[in-house]
Amino acid sequence: MYSLDFIQQRISSAFADARFLHEPIKLYEPISYTLDQGGKRIRPVLVLLACDLFGGDIEKAVFPAMGLEIFHNFTLLHDDIMDNAPLRRGQETVHKKWNDNTAILSGDTMFVLAYEYVAKTDAALLPEVLRLFNDTARKVCEGQQYDMNFETQEKVTIEQYKMMIRLKTAVLIACSLKLGAIIARAEPAEANKLYDFGIELGLAFQLQDDYLDTFGDVAIFGKEIGGDIITHKKTFLFLKAFEVARGDDLAHLTYLFNTPEIPPAEKTNKVIRIYQKLRIDEYTRQEIEMHFQNASQIFNSLNVKEELRKEIHGLAGGMVGRKK
Amino acid sequence: MYSLDFIQQRISSAFADARFLHEPIKLYEPISYTLDQGGKRIRPVLVLLACDLFGGDIEKAVFPAMGLEIFHNFTLLHDDIMDNAPLRRGQETVHKKWNDNTAILSGDTMFVLAYEYVAKTDAALLPEVLRLFNDTARKVCEGQQYDMNFETQEKVTIEQYKMMIRLKTAVLIACSLKLGAIIARAEPAEANKLYDFGIELGLAFQLQDDYLDTFGDVAIFGKEIGGDIITHKKTFLFLKAFEVARGDDLAHLTYLFNTPEIPPAEKTNKVIRIYQKLRIDEYTRQEIEMHFQNASQIFNSLNVKEELRKEIHGLAGGMVGRKK
Repeated sequence: MYSLDFIQQRISSAFADARFLHEPIKLYEPISYTLDQGGKRIRPVLVLLACDLFGGDIEKAVFPAMGLEIFHNFTLLHDDIMDNAPLRRGQETVHKKWNDNTAILSGDTMFVLAYEYVAKTDAALLPEVLRLFNDTARKVCEGQQYDMNFETQEKVTIEQYKMMIRLKTAVLIACSLKLGAIIARAEPAEANKLYDFGIELGLAFQLQDDYLDTFGDVAIFGKEIGGDIITHKKTFLFLKAFEVARGDDLAHLTYLFNTPEIPPAEKTNKVIRIYQKLRIDEYTRQEIEMHFQNASQIFNSLNVKEELRKEIHGLAGGMVGRKK
Repeated sequence: MYSLDFIQQRISSAFADARFLHEPIKLYEPISYTLDQGGKRIRPVLVLLACDLFGGDIEKAVFPAMGLEIFHNFTLLHDDIMDNAPLRRGQETVHKKWNDNTAILSGDTMFVLAYEYVAKTDAALLPEVLRLFNDTARKVCEGQQYDMNFETQEKVTIEQYKMMIRLKTAVLIACSLKLGAIIARAEPAEANKLYDFGIELGLAFQLQDDYLDTFGDVAIFGKEIGGDIITHKKTFLFLKAFEVARGDDLAHLTYLFNTPEIPPAEKTNKVIRIYQKLRIDEYTRQEIEMHFQNASQIFNSLNVKEELRKEIHGLAGGMVGRKK
């Protein structure tokens, strides 16, 4: 059984050892730039943790785990074009540093790379691994489409929002865990439980991300607070606020979100004050807690030794901002 | 043994039977639009012909063959964004009919679909099939990058140009043939020969496309003549012309390709006249013929019954504009 620290270092060293720079340089330089930036590498770490949980050889999971991380970074690269985002992890995005065409084509190539790495698994497991990865990749694309649809869609329900983040974020977390279980040759029922755990964890994780965007500490969150408010993103917080607001609060929120002339800092401050008055922070934390509890319940029903649960449980708690 | 006609119809009906329209509609509508346009379906037809050539069950090749066609259409969709092309097969391109973001994301989803279809093969063959497809997809991306590099690169050699079209076009033709051979469980040496045949055929095919863009009959070519001249594309014709031109011809060509003010029709006519004087049409036909002869030589060395060769040979001849 490996510690979370050990597994994080194993993934870091795997990426440090990989050489992504080939000819033509213009194609591979943005790929190398993207994958060298690091990030938390949550997905490949989950693959190895899940593999270890079921007594598998984590070395057999390293390449497929890298494949999921490469896929995740590919989706960020293309999403950043679609969202016209200037920064990612504090650095210029590929389409800004180079251009849109480079970002499209280097992204496509990363997608192939992801498949190459995911396919580095025992031949006997390949059909199942590939089915899982294809299904996940398709759903992530669908999630991104719903996310874009919601930007211009007048009415979005909290249920629709959760369906979107399930597709866009949670299925890849779930896929990571299930992939590790498959490589460890866990019982299918157990692997599926781990997938369901990943869905609930992924929902909690995305809601936590939404929470931090508005109520986070800049120093911990690592990016400016209020981005979602300024871009009028229909997050859980936004949707919940419009669900519970009445009278003056509703009128004020409507005004704030429909008046582009309000300076960003003023808008953010005012919206946060109304959110606090409406207890949106509490509602959101309750929602996160609910999904985390669902996740824990599924996790605890797994047929694995008690002492093996600690590392995943620790990482999962960290993903949703729990201290212990 | 099946006729070319039968196999073309089998592929058409397979696409007619497939339903690509799912929720979210905005994601899948452009995919359905693209795949319903048809086109010549050369790649999937080659898969089935190659499978049949080695006595395989063509029904087992239908889904993987569709996967290659979906992949090909995905590359066209993303290439059309990068080239800002308004039309494809006489219809509006996806990024024009919808927008760039839709074209990016629907393209990504088509790429997943391509993998899903390619993976619909016997589990025992999956590792080899996937290795071939990954390798091909990567090379096609590299080819597109070289193609974009050459637009702004001052000096491009004919050798570099051929390396580019080998990656961008020929490897997918080669992959189609080899995939059919693999599914038919042909000897690896034979499958590799068919791949090499496909490379030479693919080179001849792309050179023929270049030839037709300048010297073709609009009615047969199906698009306007002279597109490559107007966009100053560094095709074989262009590179050969600058290789052999001397004195006034060279000066005139240089002037024509460096003076954006010249009206397109005038430019095309004048360039074609110089090309004819320099016998670029003959050089190009010789080049096509050379690669076609290379292809034929490899093809004839295959260990298959004589009467089985006819259909592929017929299609191959058609691809490079041979009457017989």
